[in-house]
Amino acid sequence: MSALRIGVCGNGTVGGGTIELLRSQAVLLGARAGRELLLTRVGARRDREDCPTGDVPVHRDLLEVARADDVDVVVESIGGTTLAKDIVETALRCGKSVVTANKALIAEHGNELLALAEECGGSLLCEAAVAGAVPILKALRDGMAANTVSELSGIINGTGNFILTEMGAHQRPFDEVLAEAQALGYAEADPTFDVEGTDAAHKLSILAAMAFSTPLNFSAVFCEGISAVTPADIQFADELGYRIKHLGIAKRHADGIELRVHPTLLPKGSLLANVDGVLNAVRLQGHAAGETVYSGAGAGRLPTASAVVADIVDIARAGGNSVHCLGVPVSNLESAPTLPMEAVTSAWYLRMQAEDRPGVMSQLANCLSAEGISIEALIQKPPKGAAATVPVVVLTNSAREEALRRAVTAISALPGITHPHCIRIESAN
Amino acid sequence: MSALRIGVCGNGTVGGGTIELLRSQAVLLGARAGRELLLTRVGARRDREDCPTGDVPVHRDLLEVARADDVDVVVESIGGTTLAKDIVETALRCGKSVVTANKALIAEHGNELLALAEECGGSLLCEAAVAGAVPILKALRDGMAANTVSELSGIINGTGNFILTEMGAHQRPFDEVLAEAQALGYAEADPTFDVEGTDAAHKLSILAAMAFSTPLNFSAVFCEGISAVTPADIQFADELGYRIKHLGIAKRHADGIELRVHPTLLPKGSLLANVDGVLNAVRLQGHAAGETVYSGAGAGRLPTASAVVADIVDIARAGGNSVHCLGVPVSNLESAPTLPMEAVTSAWYLRMQAEDRPGVMSQLANCLSAEGISIEALIQKPPKGAAATVPVVVLTNSAREEALRRAVTAISALPGITHPHCIRIESAN
Repeated sequence: MSALRIGVCGNGTVGGGTIELLRSQAVLLGARAGRELLLTRVGARRDREDCPTGDVPVHRDLLEVARADDVDVVVESIGGTTLAKDIVETALRCGKSVVTANKALIAEHGNELLALAEECGGSLLCEAAVAGAVPILKALRDGMAANTVSELSGIINGTGNFILTEMGAHQRPFDEVLAEAQALGYAEADPTFDVEGTDAAHKLSILAAMAFSTPLNFSAVFCEGISAVTPADIQFADELGYRIKHLGIAKRHADGIELRVHPTLLPKGSLLANVDGVLNAVRLQGHAAGETVYSGAGAGRLPTASAVVADIVDIARAGGNSVHCLGVPVSNLESAPTLPMEAVTSAWYLRMQAEDRPGVMSQLANCLSAEGISIEALIQKPPKGAAATVPVVVLTNSAREEALRRAVTAISALPGITHPHCIRIESAN
Repeated sequence: MSALRIGVCGNGTVGGGTIELLRSQAVLLGARAGRELLLTRVGARRDREDCPTGDVPVHRDLLEVARADDVDVVVESIGGTTLAKDIVETALRCGKSVVTANKALIAEHGNELLALAEECGGSLLCEAAVAGAVPILKALRDGMAANTVSELSGIINGTGNFILTEMGAHQRPFDEVLAEAQALGYAEADPTFDVEGTDAAHKLSILAAMAFSTPLNFSAVFCEGISAVTPADIQFADELGYRIKHLGIAKRHADGIELRVHPTLLPKGSLLANVDGVLNAVRLQGHAAGETVYSGAGAGRLPTASAVVADIVDIARAGGNSVHCLGVPVSNLESAPTLPMEAVTSAWYLRMQAEDRPGVMSQLANCLSAEGISIEALIQKPPKGAAATVPVVVLTNSAREEALRRAVTAISALPGITHPHCIRIESAN
């Protein structure tokens, strides 16, 4: 079969890694793909020493690569949602396939781009957009093809996981660890996307669309970051048998889909609880397969390029057939309502400061029981020196979020209690 | 596209589950496969109440299914390597594709069967043969397509993992837990295949062939079972920061390939160490992706059928193209020598009984240092009551197996030491 000709737009981390793999693994890739994978064009605004391109022409105008006659597959690895979108649309309209690692682009514009790909007869794949090297989209699309997936959850932002892991291991506050993560290059100068959960929400929307065969619905994801988690929370959770992870969670119910990103207490014995540092991991619950878990590097030059090139191999093997990114044609996707957070059910961790005098605890318990919420565990520490208040931690049983919020509002109004802070618990992860 | 017509040979656990999924998930499978997956024939020696087949013809002669004109894909789910082999060969010679969960058949006859499949233009896939519901073969073939895999390891026998987990959790001896596993249906009446490692060796040979693009080489796998592991070993390992798992390990070196199945100490923090009960898990080390880990149900009716049907979807999506089970055509596989165990390097756990008197420990240390092996950790328990000997546990640094064996022979000859027992350690799992 003739060679599959590849044009890579971008020569930074992802593009550079992709070019490196295409060049260094050419023989092995040819055998595995069933045809040569030939780099024919590179688009880059400037040359980079760490990204030699041999005698492959390098274009300063990236759209030239998207239009080039000798390119069958365009790799979009410049990031962002403006020029990147132009490149993807141009390439698809020229009848090419596209591979991207760009989660923002797919999460925010995926519905129209996937429809365009089908219309033009090409494939648009994005394995590298979620959990880096971990072939989680292929697991959903191929490995779980026989399954009705009822839920999934995952640690899908390595920066956040690194920060929580460090905070827990050394009892260090959030701000200090964030600064270290920035120094190490794990976190961006503007860390908002990572620590406030936007990046995880992008990825969760892709996972959920694939798992439930629904259109991408990024704007519906509830999103809570990790900046309010304290080393004390991690310590209390540990005493109670839990670790705190920043999870993306998607669950399908008869009346709608939960889509949420937030800090979460997980039982220590669960596999996700043991995924530390910059690693990513995703857990799928299929009606036939049961629970499967996938973990590995969520970012990095070659891990991400590994996923990009795997998508190129998929396209090569498919011959002229298109590969449907979400597992089914766009016309087979069915919208489903998003469940409002008020209706989401989970158990809760509540931490607050309480005055150390009779009656306070019973008032606290009354606020919970008035909403039908019972207490599963409670920690009250003895006062330190002359401190007027002591930390109190409560684990509740499972309750609807609206009930919990009403109870917390009532607790906040109690004279002896201040600073209530709440974290959701997932037991089946 | 026209329907893909499926004949299932066998209506037991795997075949029955496959028939159930094909019937219950027909609409979803049609959308995901791009064409209808139609059950047209069943082969079964007797009908089973738990496996309704609707109006699909049931053949008592299973070879009729393998030859039927209205069958495109034959599912072989009867097990064994005699009639099963006949069915697979017949189906392939009739131009059909085959999906099987039969690890023994693939491990022992895979080279000839895969060659036959290529010759006849069909596919022969076996995702369900390794780690049940976990799509580990697809992860290697597709997700890791850009990677040179240097090593892999896995908990690939659920029975063995259940037994070790129970022994550790409740300090129960091997024989007692094995009897319970048999009563629960996790272990066969003849448990040899599971507890002596043959089943794991079958699976390891399939994983290694795929990871290293070598022919299947089951007979080269070194195999040591779990029956010699004691609750005391699990307890000592715990004190030293390890868990004991029955692992299959394959590593590629410049001078050959390690293929080994044996009990192994793993650091507690590693993901595989936390995979308990009947779960399976496999860890891959790719040059680009780095370490990725995959876990889930290793057996069971629907988990196994989930993998079988995923293979059918792969074949349906490939249209007329064949899917190469090992990722490349058989002609691209390259034999590599198997490294003899004497040349394998690992750290070791040694447990023995030692007389509680001066000189014994220094003699023990001398036997190790004479072979260039140093001691990383040591536990000596105080004597219990009037016991003449005490248990001593030594962790060594990394050493060639031949040196360790010579040292253990010398230790065994010491007057004050009896019952030396050795377990290998893997740190990077």
